[in-house]
Amino acid sequence: MSSTFVINNTKSKYCALKSIPVESVKLTDKFWSERIKTMEEVTLPLQYELLEETHRIDNFRRASGKISGDFVGFFFNDSDVYKWIEAVAYLLSYKKNEKLEGLVDSVIEEIRLAQDEDGYLDTYFTFEKKQDRWTNLKDMHELYCAGHLIQAAVAYRRATGKASLLNIAIKLADHIARIFGPHGREGTSGHPEIEMALVELYRETNDKKYLDLARFFIDERGKGVIGGSSYHIDHKPFRELNEIVGHAVRSLYLNSGATDLYMEIGDETLLDALERLWSNLVEKKMYVTGGAGARKEGEAFGEEYELPNETAYAETCAGIANLMWNFRMLQTLGEARFADIMELCLYNGVLSGISLDGKEYLYVNPLADRGNHRRQRWFACACCPPNIARTITAIPGYMYSVSSDGIWVHLYASSILKLDINSSSVTVKEETDYPWDGNIEFVLEANSHFKLFLRKPGWCEKFSVSINGEKVNPILENSYIVIEKDWQEGDTVRLNLVMNPELLESHPKVKDNVGRVAIRRGPIIYCVEAEDNPWGDVWDLEISEGTGLVEEYRDILGGLVVVKGEGYVNDPESWNGLYLTRGNARALKREIEFVAIPYYAWANRTPGPMEIWIKRS
Amino acid sequence: MSSTFVINNTKSKYCALKSIPVESVKLTDKFWSERIKTMEEVTLPLQYELLEETHRIDNFRRASGKISGDFVGFFFNDSDVYKWIEAVAYLLSYKKNEKLEGLVDSVIEEIRLAQDEDGYLDTYFTFEKKQDRWTNLKDMHELYCAGHLIQAAVAYRRATGKASLLNIAIKLADHIARIFGPHGREGTSGHPEIEMALVELYRETNDKKYLDLARFFIDERGKGVIGGSSYHIDHKPFRELNEIVGHAVRSLYLNSGATDLYMEIGDETLLDALERLWSNLVEKKMYVTGGAGARKEGEAFGEEYELPNETAYAETCAGIANLMWNFRMLQTLGEARFADIMELCLYNGVLSGISLDGKEYLYVNPLADRGNHRRQRWFACACCPPNIARTITAIPGYMYSVSSDGIWVHLYASSILKLDINSSSVTVKEETDYPWDGNIEFVLEANSHFKLFLRKPGWCEKFSVSINGEKVNPILENSYIVIEKDWQEGDTVRLNLVMNPELLESHPKVKDNVGRVAIRRGPIIYCVEAEDNPWGDVWDLEISEGTGLVEEYRDILGGLVVVKGEGYVNDPESWNGLYLTRGNARALKREIEFVAIPYYAWANRTPGPMEIWIKRS
Repeated sequence: MSSTFVINNTKSKYCALKSIPVESVKLTDKFWSERIKTMEEVTLPLQYELLEETHRIDNFRRASGKISGDFVGFFFNDSDVYKWIEAVAYLLSYKKNEKLEGLVDSVIEEIRLAQDEDGYLDTYFTFEKKQDRWTNLKDMHELYCAGHLIQAAVAYRRATGKASLLNIAIKLADHIARIFGPHGREGTSGHPEIEMALVELYRETNDKKYLDLARFFIDERGKGVIGGSSYHIDHKPFRELNEIVGHAVRSLYLNSGATDLYMEIGDETLLDALERLWSNLVEKKMYVTGGAGARKEGEAFGEEYELPNETAYAETCAGIANLMWNFRMLQTLGEARFADIMELCLYNGVLSGISLDGKEYLYVNPLADRGNHRRQRWFACACCPPNIARTITAIPGYMYSVSSDGIWVHLYASSILKLDINSSSVTVKEETDYPWDGNIEFVLEANSHFKLFLRKPGWCEKFSVSINGEKVNPILENSYIVIEKDWQEGDTVRLNLVMNPELLESHPKVKDNVGRVAIRRGPIIYCVEAEDNPWGDVWDLEISEGTGLVEEYRDILGGLVVVKGEGYVNDPESWNGLYLTRGNARALKREIEFVAIPYYAWANRTPGPMEIWIKRS
Repeated sequence: MSSTFVINNTKSKYCALKSIPVESVKLTDKFWSERIKTMEEVTLPLQYELLEETHRIDNFRRASGKISGDFVGFFFNDSDVYKWIEAVAYLLSYKKNEKLEGLVDSVIEEIRLAQDEDGYLDTYFTFEKKQDRWTNLKDMHELYCAGHLIQAAVAYRRATGKASLLNIAIKLADHIARIFGPHGREGTSGHPEIEMALVELYRETNDKKYLDLARFFIDERGKGVIGGSSYHIDHKPFRELNEIVGHAVRSLYLNSGATDLYMEIGDETLLDALERLWSNLVEKKMYVTGGAGARKEGEAFGEEYELPNETAYAETCAGIANLMWNFRMLQTLGEARFADIMELCLYNGVLSGISLDGKEYLYVNPLADRGNHRRQRWFACACCPPNIARTITAIPGYMYSVSSDGIWVHLYASSILKLDINSSSVTVKEETDYPWDGNIEFVLEANSHFKLFLRKPGWCEKFSVSINGEKVNPILENSYIVIEKDWQEGDTVRLNLVMNPELLESHPKVKDNVGRVAIRRGPIIYCVEAEDNPWGDVWDLEISEGTGLVEEYRDILGGLVVVKGEGYVNDPESWNGLYLTRGNARALKREIEFVAIPYYAWANRTPGPMEIWIKRS
């Protein structure tokens, strides 16, 4: 059995960092361990039931002739099954679970039976629809589904050693490679995803054909072979892109694939485009939650600075795609700015996508709501539920990296990391109450010389480091605190990231946030929700400009730190006109104390108004 | 020659106040006198030329067979000619001008020749279109044009004693009365206007048929005879309306007509509906400039609190209609809240509609602009230019009213008012630098007992009154300061309305104004415009919360008081991301001094950004 990686770039030439096996990290924390436990006990078994209930697995049975009837659901529903397998695979890499593994094996058998002799596999294009295969790459998501199959197959192979699904994926990938490519048909996917999958298949099999195919699909863009729209990111060659546009998930999956490709082939024009797109996203089109995609129409990016709150789309999958892309950029360049976005997404715009009990989901993650937008147990288009599952079970794999220099810590959580650095075994025991507390202790079991790179989060302005109790002047490189040392057994590094609640202001061109502030504490973005604020409508809250923000641990919503402060209720009913002098308007305002909770925890209680960007008085 | 009134409600039973003749007030001020002079010397002659140039008068010549060719322009273009005549009429009531009178007479002759034997008059529905007369009341504005003809005719008759146009109007009104009514065809106008015209025609002729017809047209609404849409205010019977909706000008003209009707027939269900509509407008749908109509689409009111700034429609005609309606409500109820809105409209959202040189117009009056929205010399749909002309030449008629108790002063300007109160002649000499100064002096030449009612503007919180140098404790009734006295020659009343620049805040539900303030000084709403603020883009200005606002008279833009203050430029280019802590954001801001000018004067210089609602820091 090989190691399980989110991406296995250990042999990639053009990257600063190397990913580590998911199972090399044993989480011992409360925050993520609890969520992974919920994944194992609640979410993944329930998702299997839902895949059955909604005939997603039946579609494979039907394709193989086992059962009759019509294909059920959306034409891309196979992908949900694959993502669920991928989610289980990461879990199995560090947690034995015969029941889930047995379920996956039985599903893989259904998939195997559904595959055509020639390798084709997509249960929608069977029987009477067989003739339509590969005729509409723009809309019909065959390559997208294939990508998810490949990702699941590689993960399952790595986690269990079983080649059953990988053989199916290879057979399909070979089929695709026979059809498309420089010497075959032109084409690329209307919904990117296969690009990163093919690079990973190349990494797993060492068969360069898959890398070439990934490159081909990226290079095909901008030629108009799928219609030439910016919605499909087909309006320009990838290397000429300046602005992040189109369907948010597609755009970010494409960037992920292009980053994977860069790590293998090292083409600077690719990296330049990726840097431009990254800046454009982070400086002009990303929500404060890490969410991406301002518009419901087309699930798409809007104009620069178009970031409405109530109508924000910020699909859970787009937050995940943002995390995936930034993880790849982080591996490529080894700069903390990418880990900052990963962390932002993970604790906010991604985690908001699943209920605390692991049973319900948000597809869309608005930053303000009247209480009407509620979690659902499933969706007709169910991309988000298994996507968030595969993200959470893979979390240990996102936390650290290695380089020839040493160990990189990106995301903080109590955990035990075991790996070899230059053939010498190292154990790092990390202890922290992160994300609620910025004190982090690392105890090392090592007997070698290397650097420990500790990420200084972008949100953190003050921090201190001590080694074996002695304070040191930290050296910062690309915003990692670098500690170089001959490490001894029991060496202890303590990092204190000063974590206080603070008010954020939005870029002046974001119209919808003028006069508003958001509360952030460490990596967590807060919101005010009705249930904690019985004094009125949270939409009428004005935060006092000079208020002291107070933090308080509460045993609600799974345990979390709330932020309290002083403000005013500007009761709309008390206004007897539209316009008042500032003095007269102030006289109508009532002083109150508000309570803010982490945004990820919203919509888990009685429905009511919520908002992140709060007016300031 | 009779007296010229904006409305002659001297014999109306159901009204608290009576309008006074336009010519009973001689303006001696700088502000309005200058504008009336520009009207006489520039605007009215130029508008005549434009009416000729655009074939609006030719359409009459064509209808009478004098010239051949097609009807030119919009089907409602006759109305522009009528409004121009009305504008000249008010001017002629107090200023002899043979040239303009001669022009009007010649135009009236063209109109006369264009009228059919049966009284029908609308130059669009002639020749091949004759068969379509009265077939599409919803869209084709025949009754609207008739209304403007009647208003012009009544005004011209009153101002000059000449019955030429009135005879034409009566012939048309009789024609309409033969067709429509309880015993004739059902119908009402898609574009209200005729209602108030018919009431005025009744007041002028004492022929009750016209009043009945006005009532009929109002009572027809809500029956679906013009399609039943809320856009046409045909979705409900008028007396059941709760929310001001639809095309803004139509809605406000309709309310004007209904108020005129109420003054004659006194139906409380009418007044109740008018009060509900007024509250809805003023509390939920009116711009701080008095502008009405949030949406370009349909030139219509939006939802409650939907008051966007950059895309505000706020048509000049809608501001005028708002003034007209409030003048009628003021006459009806004698409460200053209506005069407050008149004043607001007049100095802001109406006056902005014409350039300082009297040669160019704004049709749409946005509250924020990038410098692209510019004045034009005319419009294909040219309703606004002659409408603002008839408003400005009639201004003396809006300033005062009388009641059996005495004299009411609504709008302040240096002027000499001469009239009889209970058969005793009274002269009021008013001296003030209003709207730049709140000191107002009244010297009375009178020898009788009556009350002087001086409006305490809604914008004014502090004021004082003295009589013959002695300070008095003012009595307020419906926000008029009431001074009852046996008046003697030379009695002097001094009113001091404390006038300071102040910041306004918007109702919390007006999304686009969150975190923003507007500057008001007395009746004037201010804006920041590029030319006075060379430090950067005025859209990036943040007014300092505690700034002292300083006023300064400047000899620019016709002479006006500017307001200066301290603020910050929040330079968007200096932000290297989307979200900063308040502290880091503040560090990027540059302190500057800004200069604000009255909104009415914007767009008279080099194009550049402008806004009324300014961010506060």
